[in-house]
Amino acid sequence: MSELISPPDPVPATPTTQDDVEAFKQAFRRLAAGVSAITARTPDGRPVGFTATSLASLAATPPLATFNMARVSSAWPAIENTDHVAIHILGARNRDLAQKLSGPREERFVGEHWAPGPHELPVLRDVPAWMIGRIVERVKVHGNAVIVVQIESGGLGAEDEGLLYHERRYFTPGETV
Amino acid sequence: MSELISPPDPVPATPTTQDDVEAFKQAFRRLAAGVSAITARTPDGRPVGFTATSLASLAATPPLATFNMARVSSAWPAIENTDHVAIHILGARNRDLAQKLSGPREERFVGEHWAPGPHELPVLRDVPAWMIGRIVERVKVHGNAVIVVQIESGGLGAEDEGLLYHERRYFTPGETV
Repeated sequence: MSELISPPDPVPATPTTQDDVEAFKQAFRRLAAGVSAITARTPDGRPVGFTATSLASLAATPPLATFNMARVSSAWPAIENTDHVAIHILGARNRDLAQKLSGPREERFVGEHWAPGPHELPVLRDVPAWMIGRIVERVKVHGNAVIVVQIESGGLGAEDEGLLYHERRYFTPGETV
Repeated sequence: MSELISPPDPVPATPTTQDDVEAFKQAFRRLAAGVSAITARTPDGRPVGFTATSLASLAATPPLATFNMARVSSAWPAIENTDHVAIHILGARNRDLAQKLSGPREERFVGEHWAPGPHELPVLRDVPAWMIGRIVERVKVHGNAVIVVQIESGGLGAEDEGLLYHERRYFTPGETV
């Protein structure tokens, strides 16, 4: 069998850049992502949250998910100190909500687009799906953190097309290939 | 200011399920994701790899990314023991490649769709972008692992529409919203 999986061609793959930051940027520029929103409460009870493109499933049993953030983020003090977060899957109808939660932080919870949920977490209204997660790991890497959560419960809203983000624009799913 | 960010409505958000696995499944069923492929070498030199929907950026300086995997995966022994991986961003033209790398593991590297690259890593041909990453963290959570990599170099191929995955189908980006 080992012959079958030997390199089929002697021409090696050669990097087009040795600049680490450039390599990272040019590659991630070509990756589209689903859009979610994470919310929490600060220790003194204020709602915080942000739009994320890093939400990923880790396992189904037990149900685990991850998201990434910078520790300079305005939400970090809350995420660092809370046990629970709310995670929302956004749909096409939530485009303005996605933009609001990535805009000026003092305006993110001004309005009627949320309500208190389990653990007094700010739950966003009218999203296709949301989950309550308990934080089980905060992995600090340089100035950032990978947050691992175990899902405990959830809510469903009306179905919708998915909301995707790529190259600074929001879009919906297109053709099946 | 605190009045402005009080709950605007006394009706609380109530979960529709307290079943943790069901909450997880129904939410992630509604999240679309970009498709990537991760490859590595086993300690004895065999190429391994898999299609992933969990690739996410963590930071740009230094350039860091994460992906998630099960430790029962056929690629885990390689990922556990290697310093470097290759990470590929897939485009619409790579749909069959995405399927090949999520199919029977003994067939994943049979063919001419890859070539040896830096660190002898199997680099997939004709993808929009690829990166070489050095593993900086392997965070084990139950039977799974979150892998944190620091990007070191990269290559670019021809541009393409992004490849996305949702509800067991592959698709391309649609309309801007």
